Amino acid sequence: MTIAPKPHWSEISASKIAARDALIPEAWRIPETSALHVLDVPRTCGVLSAAEIEITETPAEVLVQKMGKGELKSYGVTLAFCKRAAIAQQLTNCLTEIFFDAALSTAKSIDETFASTSQPIGPLHGLPISLKDNFYVEGVDTTVGFVGWSNDPASGKMESEMTKIMRETGAVLFCKTNVPTAMMMPETYNNTWGYTTNPHNRNLTSGGSSGGEGSLLALKGSPLGVGTDIGDLSAYHDAPLTVVGIPAALCGLFSLKPSFGRFATYGARSGLPGQEAVRSINGPMSTSLSAVELWAKAVVGSEPWTRDPNMLPIPWREVTLPEQLCFGLLMDDGIVKPTPPVTRALLEVKAALEAAGHKVIEWTTPEAPKSQEIIEAFFVGDGGAKINSFMSLSGEDVDYPLQLQKYKARHDTIKSTPPLVGDLWTTQSERVAYNKRELDRWMNSREVTGTGRPIDGLIAPTTPYSSTPKYTFKYYHYTSPYNISDQSVATFPVTTADPSVDVKPAYDPRDHSRRRYGRFVSTTFAASDI
Amino acid sequence: MTIAPKPHWSEISASKIAARDALIPEAWRIPETSALHVLDVPRTCGVLSAAEIEITETPAEVLVQKMGKGELKSYGVTLAFCKRAAIAQQLTNCLTEIFFDAALSTAKSIDETFASTSQPIGPLHGLPISLKDNFYVEGVDTTVGFVGWSNDPASGKMESEMTKIMRETGAVLFCKTNVPTAMMMPETYNNTWGYTTNPHNRNLTSGGSSGGEGSLLALKGSPLGVGTDIGDLSAYHDAPLTVVGIPAALCGLFSLKPSFGRFATYGARSGLPGQEAVRSINGPMSTSLSAVELWAKAVVGSEPWTRDPNMLPIPWREVTLPEQLCFGLLMDDGIVKPTPPVTRALLEVKAALEAAGHKVIEWTTPEAPKSQEIIEAFFVGDGGAKINSFMSLSGEDVDYPLQLQKYKARHDTIKSTPPLVGDLWTTQSERVAYNKRELDRWMNSREVTGTGRPIDGLIAPTTPYSSTPKYTFKYYHYTSPYNISDQSVATFPVTTADPSVDVKPAYDPRDHSRRRYGRFVSTTFAASDI
Repeated sequence: MTIAPKPHWSEISASKIAARDALIPEAWRIPETSALHVLDVPRTCGVLSAAEIEITETPAEVLVQKMGKGELKSYGVTLAFCKRAAIAQQLTNCLTEIFFDAALSTAKSIDETFASTSQPIGPLHGLPISLKDNFYVEGVDTTVGFVGWSNDPASGKMESEMTKIMRETGAVLFCKTNVPTAMMMPETYNNTWGYTTNPHNRNLTSGGSSGGEGSLLALKGSPLGVGTDIGDLSAYHDAPLTVVGIPAALCGLFSLKPSFGRFATYGARSGLPGQEAVRSINGPMSTSLSAVELWAKAVVGSEPWTRDPNMLPIPWREVTLPEQLCFGLLMDDGIVKPTPPVTRALLEVKAALEAAGHKVIEWTTPEAPKSQEIIEAFFVGDGGAKINSFMSLSGEDVDYPLQLQKYKARHDTIKSTPPLVGDLWTTQSERVAYNKRELDRWMNSREVTGTGRPIDGLIAPTTPYSSTPKYTFKYYHYTSPYNISDQSVATFPVTTADPSVDVKPAYDPRDHSRRRYGRFVSTTFAASDI
Repeated sequence: MTIAPKPHWSEISASKIAARDALIPEAWRIPETSALHVLDVPRTCGVLSAAEIEITETPAEVLVQKMGKGELKSYGVTLAFCKRAAIAQQLTNCLTEIFFDAALSTAKSIDETFASTSQPIGPLHGLPISLKDNFYVEGVDTTVGFVGWSNDPASGKMESEMTKIMRETGAVLFCKTNVPTAMMMPETYNNTWGYTTNPHNRNLTSGGSSGGEGSLLALKGSPLGVGTDIGDLSAYHDAPLTVVGIPAALCGLFSLKPSFGRFATYGARSGLPGQEAVRSINGPMSTSLSAVELWAKAVVGSEPWTRDPNMLPIPWREVTLPEQLCFGLLMDDGIVKPTPPVTRALLEVKAALEAAGHKVIEWTTPEAPKSQEIIEAFFVGDGGAKINSFMSLSGEDVDYPLQLQKYKARHDTIKSTPPLVGDLWTTQSERVAYNKRELDRWMNSREVTGTGRPIDGLIAPTTPYSSTPKYTFKYYHYTSPYNISDQSVATFPVTTADPSVDVKPAYDPRDHSRRRYGRFVSTTFAASDI
């Protein structure tokens, strides 16, 4: 008996990538290009018919309406998005697992059911939906970037509750999207699948951890995707998920990060399993705001509390807004000054709100350093033990330039200074006290809003950049306060960077010597193709 | 310069007790008695006038109504309860901090306001309310049993949010009640205040950790108290808080343990600060069910989410019940068999529900051992480090016979096997998986209820005993599943133990050799004065 030598992790990766690429039919292949801006390629490459271009550029909620009336068939819609996703993959390396065949089969079955009943399967009837690669889907892997989690496909029973809800509400699952290793970096790359680039400028990052979704959605390779958010490392401040205050230089997507307990999380795979001090949530991403709402209503309407013990039994609630709203506006967190296009976007939002009769008051984050200290402590709470153990399954290299370094560094010292539960308790107490101070600050704003209420919402940058060159996205803390406080956050595009307006000389970073933060990334908005 | 020698912890305790006792006026003193059953003493001791007896035996919600119409004054009501609480203290040692003078002054002020406005201050207008000794109240200590936390009175600013809500809704705070050290034992005793006995039989425990409230409320020394619950160590399964399935041999109180996020917890003191894996909650306790509802509505109506960052923005919701309900009934957790009076109580509830046209189906807890393993891991999550550090402040002795031993034992080994955050994460993952299995089991009951719905509720014993002799309450795990799952639980009295019916020979404990569990405590219901 001979024992086969254990393959090197890079061989496993190569084999995974080859298997994925083989699932893209020859007719859907496009030639390589050196272009940086590739958003137009799906329309021009000749793979899609005119009808397929129209379908893939139709908002998700309209597609669902048309399929629900029999004006479109799920098969045709799904086929169009499979093709466009294949194009997006070839341009940005945004996909991990591809299951187009299963999707087309599901779509056919949905069409057959509709033909006999004339009733939609559910609120997402026939809609192709992409999932971040931490949701278990029958028959394919869920690597979360770890090479050691390759070649271990999920059974149907193992599917995440969110996956099941998607199926039951009528969605057609067709692909999963790339993530950073453990989903704990602000750029999307890992040893299994490699780097996901930004279709607005392929020298730039599409962010992380839902960067695969970001690039796919920006290229309209999916009408709606499900990402996750645990902190500033999440999709919701990713460049592709341009947020109010961040120019939509990189895409123009809407997303929703709910408070924990609204959208099912049970059975999704985590790089930090069991970590609960700062909660990870799931949420929708789309180029359409209405699609985000459609998805949220569908998920809450499925009563996720009947299947996920962490969900709260709160039905969908319609809100009637007062005529005049008052928003807080955060221009600068006091640590990293937003770059000119971000500042301009914030001022445009302010002007638009005021023009609509609303009020905008200045907001500040005097405790930004505290929120960062707390969230960092939670992220490396176990000293990096779990992440390192998952990496050691394959022996993959952890010599990353970004975030994951800290897990390695912490892990290297774990033997002499193990992170104790008592220390976590202390940080958790500090987090509750921090949240209390911030809540009081929010509530006390009623003294200055003039509406008799506290601010109705807070407008803030999601990152200080519109994006950064690959491997340089370092400051991800503009969103930390809302992850620590578990507040719900919506992100929306505002504008695009414009080198003729957002001029570098007008920008004076706070601390030239502190290159780790505050470094002005000129390529972000000066790149001619943005 | 000379440095005064640090007093021995027993001297600090003696001084605290003497100061408390000095706050009871001479006219309210009663002679010592050797009686075990002392529930009648308040009526017969001569301290209370006939009017005061009537007031203190009127349900809280009726008192509030009468004060709100001007038919009673808060001053008179408060004075009556101060007197009766003083009697209860002398009988059972249920109080810690006494602030009758401040209460009477508050009551007077409330009456004056009412005289000029004819409007109640709030939904708890003028009602005296007792608080467990983990709520900060201006001017007095919050020892949570620790000698080392003595002589450190709270400022007004430090008051717990629940304390503030009580004041703002019109309540009159007049005393705080005893707890076990760190609130982490199922009987109420500590080195600062000593042992709180049960007024039904002073050889028995009134339970823990809200045992002080239990004894005070059973003696009607308070119309409504606020306790806390973190597990089976809580008020909600205490003997005085007899629960459905537990004969009300010891009192006959109602209580409500909500899910986390409903009743403000911010700023309450904990023996395990920062521990969040199993959440501690606050809740009302009273001899009146309507009073429990009154309090819950008042607290939720105060919009606690505007002041406590952990609260959920869910207004009070009225529920319309179906005509026929179906309950699960747990007769035995498979580990410790309930004693005869408990079993009889469960069967009486079943019969009453069926007579009212409802359905009752058998329920089991096959995973009871798992739930116990999980909650125990959480309780000693930090290896007892924090509790031991708080005890070491005064050098007090930790040689307790019960629960606290495990903290000491764990602490003694902490240097060689420190509890790591990664281990906590693992247990937290196991808890979520356990909760999922239990949720599925609950939901799947719809197949057998015959109502088309899962069971509408679960009837279960809270402990296997009606009470136990002092220092012998060992099995506190009947409630663990609901603390781990964060389900809301109401407790209510059913019956009293009756030695002529609940006969020992009919009871066969599961495991005679396993004395730690399943030991039949005959005195519980055989005591002639119960």
